[in-house]
Amino acid sequence: MFERYNLDLNVDEKTIDKTLPGIKVQLGALQRACRDNGIPVVILIEGWNASGITSVSGEIVQAIDPRGYNLYSIGAPTDEEKAHHLIWRFCIKTPAKGRFAIFARSWYSRTLAEQLSGLNWKEQLKESTSAIRNFERQLVDDGTLVLKFFLHISKEEQRRRMIERERDTLTGWMITKGDWDFHHQYDLYLPVIEQIIEETDTPFSPWTVVEATNPLYAGFKVISRITKALDKIVSGKESPSKNYRNISHKYKKRLDLDNVDLTKTVTKQDYSGQLREYQDRVREAQYLLYKRKVPLIIVYEGWDAAGKGGNILRLTASMNPRGYEVVPVSRPNDNELSHHYLWRFYTHFPKAGHITLFDRSWYGRVLVERVEGFCSEDEWKRAYNEINEMEQNFVSEGGGIVKFWLEIDQDEQLARFQQRETDSRKQWKITDEDWRNREKWNEYRGAVNEMLAKTDTLHSSWTLVESNDKFYARLKTLQTTIDYVGTLL
Amino acid sequence: MFERYNLDLNVDEKTIDKTLPGIKVQLGALQRACRDNGIPVVILIEGWNASGITSVSGEIVQAIDPRGYNLYSIGAPTDEEKAHHLIWRFCIKTPAKGRFAIFARSWYSRTLAEQLSGLNWKEQLKESTSAIRNFERQLVDDGTLVLKFFLHISKEEQRRRMIERERDTLTGWMITKGDWDFHHQYDLYLPVIEQIIEETDTPFSPWTVVEATNPLYAGFKVISRITKALDKIVSGKESPSKNYRNISHKYKKRLDLDNVDLTKTVTKQDYSGQLREYQDRVREAQYLLYKRKVPLIIVYEGWDAAGKGGNILRLTASMNPRGYEVVPVSRPNDNELSHHYLWRFYTHFPKAGHITLFDRSWYGRVLVERVEGFCSEDEWKRAYNEINEMEQNFVSEGGGIVKFWLEIDQDEQLARFQQRETDSRKQWKITDEDWRNREKWNEYRGAVNEMLAKTDTLHSSWTLVESNDKFYARLKTLQTTIDYVGTLL
Repeated sequence: MFERYNLDLNVDEKTIDKTLPGIKVQLGALQRACRDNGIPVVILIEGWNASGITSVSGEIVQAIDPRGYNLYSIGAPTDEEKAHHLIWRFCIKTPAKGRFAIFARSWYSRTLAEQLSGLNWKEQLKESTSAIRNFERQLVDDGTLVLKFFLHISKEEQRRRMIERERDTLTGWMITKGDWDFHHQYDLYLPVIEQIIEETDTPFSPWTVVEATNPLYAGFKVISRITKALDKIVSGKESPSKNYRNISHKYKKRLDLDNVDLTKTVTKQDYSGQLREYQDRVREAQYLLYKRKVPLIIVYEGWDAAGKGGNILRLTASMNPRGYEVVPVSRPNDNELSHHYLWRFYTHFPKAGHITLFDRSWYGRVLVERVEGFCSEDEWKRAYNEINEMEQNFVSEGGGIVKFWLEIDQDEQLARFQQRETDSRKQWKITDEDWRNREKWNEYRGAVNEMLAKTDTLHSSWTLVESNDKFYARLKTLQTTIDYVGTLL
Repeated sequence: MFERYNLDLNVDEKTIDKTLPGIKVQLGALQRACRDNGIPVVILIEGWNASGITSVSGEIVQAIDPRGYNLYSIGAPTDEEKAHHLIWRFCIKTPAKGRFAIFARSWYSRTLAEQLSGLNWKEQLKESTSAIRNFERQLVDDGTLVLKFFLHISKEEQRRRMIERERDTLTGWMITKGDWDFHHQYDLYLPVIEQIIEETDTPFSPWTVVEATNPLYAGFKVISRITKALDKIVSGKESPSKNYRNISHKYKKRLDLDNVDLTKTVTKQDYSGQLREYQDRVREAQYLLYKRKVPLIIVYEGWDAAGKGGNILRLTASMNPRGYEVVPVSRPNDNELSHHYLWRFYTHFPKAGHITLFDRSWYGRVLVERVEGFCSEDEWKRAYNEINEMEQNFVSEGGGIVKFWLEIDQDEQLARFQQRETDSRKQWKITDEDWRNREKWNEYRGAVNEMLAKTDTLHSSWTLVESNDKFYARLKTLQTTIDYVGTLL
């Protein structure tokens, strides 16, 4: 592929000098238009070492309003980042509506550096590029413009530049032996990089390879392309297209609320007898996860008053509080609303060895947001697939997920609502909204059943928890968690 | 001091078992009241190793709504944290209005571990505890309730517990040689900890030493104290008092806008000749800061249309974009408003070797917020001292600060406003608000002069930049930055 690009092309520097300032002014204006129209933009600059990534990034940011962008210089991961899956550190950096996120190096460099070592790199490459395609497609489907550039120079040019930098006392100390090792393996990496680019050069997020021998031309080409792409979107000549299709994941079993046996109970005596033992075992499980650096997500969904809060308290009662976090999920705030809807969950994903319990979760997209019309039909229909991909990515990099649906029937909910209203210590738990949601029971029920059908995957399955009897429900979530961790370790 | 506490006190476990559940319910209700009243609460649990910090923290969080708190488990700093001054990692974790921040270990443990080693620890202790007192006082002055607990056990008890933990296969691997070293030096640390506690046991943020031999009693005492303290605040029996007094810092010189010579100019030719050279030298300065791991803050303040944006563009034109960030400051968003007003700036403080340019800054507190009445008189009067303390803390831990006031006169501002209104490429820069602010020129002028008088300190001085001539102004900020970095290195 790279052979298509002429690295010695004749550059008409005079014309560039004349036109570039005007293009930059236009870029500035387009960036403000993106802000006003709420269009998020991702620009990533990749390339060989010494290909000019830094100076091209610098040229872009000088042309736009500092109020409107974040520049992320991507290098080796921090301790915190290492403790998460690779794409996580980028998920939490995706731009809010109307903002630019500029990546000087990106998930591509990091995939190459962190995931494609060892003998089975070809296999890994397939998995990695598939995860990257999914990630970028989710962004584009949500209305983000994704522009990707690869700065291409020859091995000889790279050598020339590295020697030049080494001779400069200011920058010489920054060229390491590792950089030289990488240089010597230029020919080895070339086909790998070609393959990555080919596999991720999608209609929704295409690559532009930039002949970067002449730095002036490189900056000119990148900035011109960005300007053109923005112009098309802002002027409405092109609208970001939806690219998803709901891929049929392998479903583990058919779950249905109809088949839940709500008569299941446990005596108070049995409950008291077993609770403490189960809690001790959950604590053990937590220490083992910590020791083996496995992150665990526990999702709680269920009807209002199904007992999620109390259930979580029992599950965590004996856990070391330093190792778990309960994330109660309610309406997104303004900042969260201006991001991809999964963004606010990524920021709470557990790092290696830690546990995050979500009290309600991303499934709100296909439940409350669907039923109440807080998102479009296109958005919630797309969400099943997006959620499956997100969970699969988390699991395939070594994480674990347990998902509970706490099921009660309408009579039980009514009894609990009434009790909350009469008990002064519990009144704060009940709101008008709870009563309103109750009226839409059947609509919600349909949504739950569809969610169970479409997101109960082999890698991340649902557990239906019979919760008319709270004691029974608590023991079941404890037991399920203990068993699940056992399968992980 | 510690000898006052009876570690073998007789604990009436029966009474505690009977009363504790009720107190926890009360604590839950008080936490919701804090949420409704917007009261931020800091609870920190310190103590000897194995004194029960984790289990006490766990008891607290089990009693309150997970929606309302963050639990921070404080250990050795991450790479990111190491690259900042010690108090920074806590500044960015202070709670928003109505939220609890619970610290399992805190700035105290970290000060002991990171700052009090070496021969001059006594001197360092003075400086450290003074910084801590200032930090806590600023929180309390802003309406935060700060509750501090030290869990005290004897050396023998510690030994007993450590052996017990070592024997437990689940936890044994977590006890390190370092823990034992620390244990053997118990008697050495005792007077140091006593001194830290005495020096930071202030009226606004007092310590409670907890006899922690009996874990049941320790949890009971901590939770009772928290409940009592919250009750006093919530019921209005006690209102958080203001504790600041404006300390007279040593002022470097008397600055006054009257003495700025706005006729200073430079010819276009001289400007063009020098600009590139200065920019190269700033780039050099940036690399040296990076190499020596010195963080630098550059503050830009000045009249509307004084040329801040253009000036920053020239100052950063040759900088490596990976090493600097421009932070444009405008109205705080809801999340920022719900924190201490300095919080949103802390989150952008540069790490070692990096540069942050603030396009407007925390000085907004004593300028726009003062003049427009966005904060109370008490708040902006207090701010001079708070700002001085913040800057001093940053500098005393190795950082550098350059502060520019870009001065123009009213005629020049008018001319620039009019030009912006007629030039289609610049119209976006001018708003009605600019015209309104202009009407309050004299009020702003008074505020600027008071700011210059009260925050031009030895450790962080202001530079007045004559900016009627933009070229002159740009060269001056470049030159000043180059010179200042020279004094740092």
